[in-house]
Amino acid sequence: MSELNTVEAEFHRVDRRPLRTAAVVGTGLIGTSVGLALSARGVTTYLLDRDPEVAREAAALGAGRAARPPHPVDLAVLAMPPSAIPSALIEYQRSGLAHYFTDVGSVKLPPQRTAATAGADLRGYVGGHPMAGAERSGPSAARADLFHGRTWVLTPSARTDPAAVARASELIRLCGAELLLMDAAEHDRTVALTSHAPHLLASLIAGRLADTDPARLRLAGAGLRDTTRIALGDPDLWTDILRSNAAPVAEVLREVADELAVAVAALDWLAGPDPAQQLRGERELHHLLSLGVAGRERLPAAAAQPAGR
Amino acid sequence: MSELNTVEAEFHRVDRRPLRTAAVVGTGLIGTSVGLALSARGVTTYLLDRDPEVAREAAALGAGRAARPPHPVDLAVLAMPPSAIPSALIEYQRSGLAHYFTDVGSVKLPPQRTAATAGADLRGYVGGHPMAGAERSGPSAARADLFHGRTWVLTPSARTDPAAVARASELIRLCGAELLLMDAAEHDRTVALTSHAPHLLASLIAGRLADTDPARLRLAGAGLRDTTRIALGDPDLWTDILRSNAAPVAEVLREVADELAVAVAALDWLAGPDPAQQLRGERELHHLLSLGVAGRERLPAAAAQPAGR
Repeated sequence: MSELNTVEAEFHRVDRRPLRTAAVVGTGLIGTSVGLALSARGVTTYLLDRDPEVAREAAALGAGRAARPPHPVDLAVLAMPPSAIPSALIEYQRSGLAHYFTDVGSVKLPPQRTAATAGADLRGYVGGHPMAGAERSGPSAARADLFHGRTWVLTPSARTDPAAVARASELIRLCGAELLLMDAAEHDRTVALTSHAPHLLASLIAGRLADTDPARLRLAGAGLRDTTRIALGDPDLWTDILRSNAAPVAEVLREVADELAVAVAALDWLAGPDPAQQLRGERELHHLLSLGVAGRERLPAAAAQPAGR
Repeated sequence: MSELNTVEAEFHRVDRRPLRTAAVVGTGLIGTSVGLALSARGVTTYLLDRDPEVAREAAALGAGRAARPPHPVDLAVLAMPPSAIPSALIEYQRSGLAHYFTDVGSVKLPPQRTAATAGADLRGYVGGHPMAGAERSGPSAARADLFHGRTWVLTPSARTDPAAVARASELIRLCGAELLLMDAAEHDRTVALTSHAPHLLASLIAGRLADTDPARLRLAGAGLRDTTRIALGDPDLWTDILRSNAAPVAEVLREVADELAVAVAALDWLAGPDPAQQLRGERELHHLLSLGVAGRERLPAAAAQPAGR
């Protein structure tokens, strides 16, 4: 944490000029939402997408101009899957799109390492990850207030110029989000626990409904809908995320698998004839359920958001 | 299904008199909500609870009268955990509380078997299960519209008097719910899949947050909140439910554990150095994620409900 503390101290000393110009590369849900938020706060925002039609769609919604900026902008936001970030960073650094770069990918350390190896200038780049999203994708799902009240992580490396952090933190402020500085590896281990492993488990539960008799699905209630909602996420994007964070996610899931084996053993004892084992199984399940209540109660309260489907 | 069809045909021939009097035994969330719905529709409803203070609390909310009825009522609703149902059914049948009985337990076959073995009169009883609930418990969480638009299963046995089914179906109509007749064993296997196994998995995920550093919890988003919401359920009640349905839940969880092992293997391949294995892992994960989307999209749309926490 001492390295992070140094970065934090330095970036507070950096001259904070307002963000005047920005570029968003990748105008999907997140990129377009960034464009909407920045444009609403008076930042001249340029929108780029590998599909120019999608950039024009975002522009039509008010997210900015679907054009390459005539001069380097203050900050470029790379809004694309983690695996696409290193090559995009190098390409746009070389073509002089912006003075500083950040991204919004769900995984931080591997893209940064790959970019460094491939020749990116890590001084002008700080990784970022806003804790916001939706099941739907594309510009039409975007909202200017998507990041409002949400945590937005920045993961500066030892090489990051404090001015890059200052620029990205100004972006975060303009989006109404709350900055959290974090070590990249620690970020990746954390989202493996809070997002990626839960996503895969939700997909496994939801997948079991794919060939279930429709009459039986009438017994599905609000609980099942909530618990599997995240499984609606785009499989292409989520394969990319899981691939980029494979080892930390596997570590969390191995621990879940161990606990699942304990739960199944407890259920087998309960289904069996031995009263002593039944009692043991009952205690084990009660313990698991109580731990679940304790863990869930520690989650921060929900930010105001429209209801999911 | 032929046995169920016979029951269905017979109960449609039964004389449908309006429900005039009812008793609710157990005035928690579900029982009090039943009382509120019946009282609002003009049914004289008597409320009983092992804790008389809780019954008086439900009565004060408008769910009925906290008293034993002077004469047998048309229908008694046993609103208690599955394991408490057999002895309550026998006790209240013997004391002549009601002409017919139903319950609202989440598991159907084992309580019915236990009740039959212990001497209950199965002719006057039909098992029931409304697909509604909340994380909070007790009378204060009850709502007259809790069952509105929800599926409410009845699981008549070969011995059930069609008049009992007619009585319970009138209760369901008055609560604004939709009747679904189902075989008890089929019901139990189905809720193992749609409710009990997902609950335990949500508890396992939530349990991992119990000792997580608070700073890391700032990375928890709406997805994690939704996916673990059901883990807030009362551990006592849920231990009872899981114990009563142990074998079917264990069967579902064993299948989930097998798929989890596949997912972990795929992640290990992706984290490893072999490009052929990486490709294989990527395909496997994409398949699991796509199946999750397909399964989730088959769930019926949400009934209008207040937002969960």
